[in-house]
Amino acid sequence: MKKTVLAKETLATATHLVLPENTNTLGNLMGGQLLNWMDVISAISAHRHCKRIVVTAAVNNVSFQHPIKLGDIVTIEAKVSRAFSSSMEVYMEVFIEDNATGKKLKSNEAIYTFVAVDQLGTPIDVPDLVPETEEEKRRYDGALRRRQLRLILAGKMKPEDATELKALFIEPKAFQ
Amino acid sequence: MKKTVLAKETLATATHLVLPENTNTLGNLMGGQLLNWMDVISAISAHRHCKRIVVTAAVNNVSFQHPIKLGDIVTIEAKVSRAFSSSMEVYMEVFIEDNATGKKLKSNEAIYTFVAVDQLGTPIDVPDLVPETEEEKRRYDGALRRRQLRLILAGKMKPEDATELKALFIEPKAFQ
Amino acid sequence: MKKTVLAKETLATATHLVLPENTNTLGNLMGGQLLNWMDVISAISAHRHCKRIVVTAAVNNVSFQHPIKLGDIVTIEAKVSRAFSSSMEVYMEVFIEDNATGKKLKSNEAIYTFVAVDQLGTPIDVPDLVPETEEEKRRYDGALRRRQLRLILAGKMKPEDATELKALFIEPKAFQ
Amino acid sequence: MKKTVLAKETLATATHLVLPENTNTLGNLMGGQLLNWMDVISAISAHRHCKRIVVTAAVNNVSFQHPIKLGDIVTIEAKVSRAFSSSMEVYMEVFIEDNATGKKLKSNEAIYTFVAVDQLGTPIDVPDLVPETEEEKRRYDGALRRRQLRLILAGKMKPEDATELKALFIEPKAFQ
Amino acid sequence: MKKTVLAKETLATATHLVLPENTNTLGNLMGGQLLNWMDVISAISAHRHCKRIVVTAAVNNVSFQHPIKLGDIVTIEAKVSRAFSSSMEVYMEVFIEDNATGKKLKSNEAIYTFVAVDQLGTPIDVPDLVPETEEEKRRYDGALRRRQLRLILAGKMKPEDATELKALFIEPKAFQ
Amino acid sequence: MKKTVLAKETLATATHLVLPENTNTLGNLMGGQLLNWMDVISAISAHRHCKRIVVTAAVNNVSFQHPIKLGDIVTIEAKVSRAFSSSMEVYMEVFIEDNATGKKLKSNEAIYTFVAVDQLGTPIDVPDLVPETEEEKRRYDGALRRRQLRLILAGKMKPEDATELKALFIEPKAFQ
Repeated sequence: MKKTVLAKETLATATHLVLPENTNTLGNLMGGQLLNWMDVISAISAHRHCKRIVVTAAVNNVSFQHPIKLGDIVTIEAKVSRAFSSSMEVYMEVFIEDNATGKKLKSNEAIYTFVAVDQLGTPIDVPDLVPETEEEKRRYDGALRRRQLRLILAGKMKPEDATELKALFIEPKAFQ
Repeated sequence: MKKTVLAKETLATATHLVLPENTNTLGNLMGGQLLNWMDVISAISAHRHCKRIVVTAAVNNVSFQHPIKLGDIVTIEAKVSRAFSSSMEVYMEVFIEDNATGKKLKSNEAIYTFVAVDQLGTPIDVPDLVPETEEEKRRYDGALRRRQLRLILAGKMKPEDATELKALFIEPKAFQ
Repeated sequence: MKKTVLAKETLATATHLVLPENTNTLGNLMGGQLLNWMDVISAISAHRHCKRIVVTAAVNNVSFQHPIKLGDIVTIEAKVSRAFSSSMEVYMEVFIEDNATGKKLKSNEAIYTFVAVDQLGTPIDVPDLVPETEEEKRRYDGALRRRQLRLILAGKMKPEDATELKALFIEPKAFQ
Repeated sequence: MKKTVLAKETLATATHLVLPENTNTLGNLMGGQLLNWMDVISAISAHRHCKRIVVTAAVNNVSFQHPIKLGDIVTIEAKVSRAFSSSMEVYMEVFIEDNATGKKLKSNEAIYTFVAVDQLGTPIDVPDLVPETEEEKRRYDGALRRRQLRLILAGKMKPEDATELKALFIEPKAFQ
Repeated sequence: MKKTVLAKETLATATHLVLPENTNTLGNLMGGQLLNWMDVISAISAHRHCKRIVVTAAVNNVSFQHPIKLGDIVTIEAKVSRAFSSSMEVYMEVFIEDNATGKKLKSNEAIYTFVAVDQLGTPIDVPDLVPETEEEKRRYDGALRRRQLRLILAGKMKPEDATELKALFIEPKAFQ
Repeated sequence: MKKTVLAKETLATATHLVLPENTNTLGNLMGGQLLNWMDVISAISAHRHCKRIVVTAAVNNVSFQHPIKLGDIVTIEAKVSRAFSSSMEVYMEVFIEDNATGKKLKSNEAIYTFVAVDQLGTPIDVPDLVPETEEEKRRYDGALRRRQLRLILAGKMKPEDATELKALFIEPKAFQ
């Protein structure tokens, strides 16, 4: 029987302080620096799922809604949302802390995909992911549609074969 | 009449050498480092389009197909593919050079979106982009579908209203 | 009445991957890099206690027992152990994760002290800390002795006035 | 007969300019950056003593008394204060230079401990240190008390066995 | 017959954005950072000439005429100007872009020399360079005089043997 | 009467350990990293001469004779060799330490020129330099010839007006 891992076992948390070396000319956090921080912590989350070397396969969706300022505390929470044969989709939420109240505000979400490889770089199988909470289950379901989308964008699947994704446009429901 | 910019005027090129400080534990370029390099050069391309401060709004699609090794020369070519009211989609191609022959191999493509802002961070209008070559035109057309997709993913558009994207699944044609 | 904060409210967690840029000539994590990572995450913990700007006042004790290797995942957990008028002692535990089993091994402990300051750098009062668990209480008690030791080392207290610390050598009990 | 090294032969000096990339949100030098600079130069001092690979074993005492500002010139002078079987205690003094007069102000002191290891990381014996000046002799004597303190803090010695340290509290004299 | 390479085949272009981490205390680009960027891109140019590992042999001439500011876009264009037995002289031009008009202003020029080596670091022969444009030819001629100058400065040639250079002072003509 | 400074008062020393983050693909110190380290320490030397903000004006001559390896200890000694109206020439010697014997080997020399500026970047006068030792006097004399050479290379002086430099080719003597 195939090994399974609970979604919560893959949680990885990074906390960063935005220093001058991380800022752009407006004094805000560089987008590229956040992309880099997210790459490292989501790789750690994927590693916790499969206990193997993982390499970044894709950045599927990142949107930046609020500028993050010099001196802000940034927390990134990453959790594997679904595993396919040798790949894992990692869902991240980024939070900024209000300096005076400590209240966390969600800044943005991001989705990265990793592939588990051996020392020679050959892809290897990973355990299945078992979602438990409502949110984990919703992301688990959405991962299939996002994967079809990623395969289409990479030219590895024809749009008309993406049955899950296609249904969305004909019989609309919540996308994520 | 609204100002326009030719696609070729927005070309920005970065050339990097993969040094030990850029590598992961396999001795290959870290995905997060490449994401960071792409953020900087695509921001420069978007700046060349609008001559204003630009901030990263989204990473729409990046896929990593080949590992990039220590000592490889990486060239990133970025060009604005379409401008909307205050945002610009930048299309990038990443090349690796064969060390012995100098032949360039396309490693991957990526699409980032930027927003032009004033000193206070308020979005401001940008010129329209004029595509000239066949490839520029194809990317210009695809940008509309990708924008609908991005708005859906951000929860700012309903799937059934994304007419361009919807058509794709009902009457299939090339996606990009 | 003076404001109080629970120890658990000050918990801050950082997770890092040891990359080639963090290593020494043996391929292990540089001590100075770990000292730097600990400085940032303990400053965040102290900030969560007082919601003010904090500056590093002292590194009281760090010992490195196990080499940390390239590719290791390092988790640092920081929590305020006691607050004095304007200073906060932060207690940290550093863990390394076994690559194959994911089991966490405690690598070392460290204690840093921070001072809360206003925009001009003048020290300001911080809330009291309330320990709840047995471990939090033990560290809370030990903090007084460590503070006397720090004041002696800084030449700001005479050894014979350090009653708490003195008792330890005359009527021995657990030091930490 | 065991090889010996004079204290002055182990002197190592680092001079740094505080640049924006080294600062915190107040525009002052980050504590963690200074800890990192001190780790490198004290490792070089320990290496000059034993001519072997050295690894950081402990940070015994660092206190930060004055903020160090952007643009300040920071000089760190490190010298081995005493050698034990395979470990070396390094004493450092940090100076800031007045921009207008060039006068050096002592900013703080710090003590780090290193262990000499072979290529496999196994501790190996180091030469004895010979102090010459009054200051070198005072630090040499103090090193024994600090070592007992470090062993107690690490749980490797009982307080009642620390005869040198114990005497200090019963028959007080200068601690350092 | 010895292999030859056209000057234009060795063109390498780097584009950088001046970020806070690259600045000095005046908020301008650090000279040392620009020297570092120029080293990497000129090494890439030399590599494109010989397709071998190259190591920096000399910096022959760099002068900084205009301060480069935070937020400026810096473009460095490097091209091999002449090849000798195992060394290559690389000529660089550095441009800054006007933020509002996009017009490029030449900031400075620089000349670095590289040597091609095998895996053991032993110098190996490189192809000859063929200049085509007027500017490439002028730089090709000047390279001989600069090489004599470099050999004199390194104490490897007597001034009276530097016939090309000597002629310049007796029968003046354009130096570069 | 114009203020003067002794050459020895401008001595500045930097000591670095070559870490993986400083290396190229051969595992040796990157030329660009050494250029950067030399820029910082020579700027500090020039600052010690004039006690004003200094900016890099030129790199006049650097040659790399020996590869510097991972783990090597690099010491850079910088001293002002001559001051002109608002500029200062700084002479540097770079040493590598033999790991086993501690013997210092001179790796290379370098000459940088700095200009003293006020807060607005306008050049300001600096004190004269007084050389004392034979070596300081020889470098002081050579600085005039190097300055003429630099002005010629920058197109600010005609070769036939460089009397000091010209004499060298007609009536040869030691160049440095």
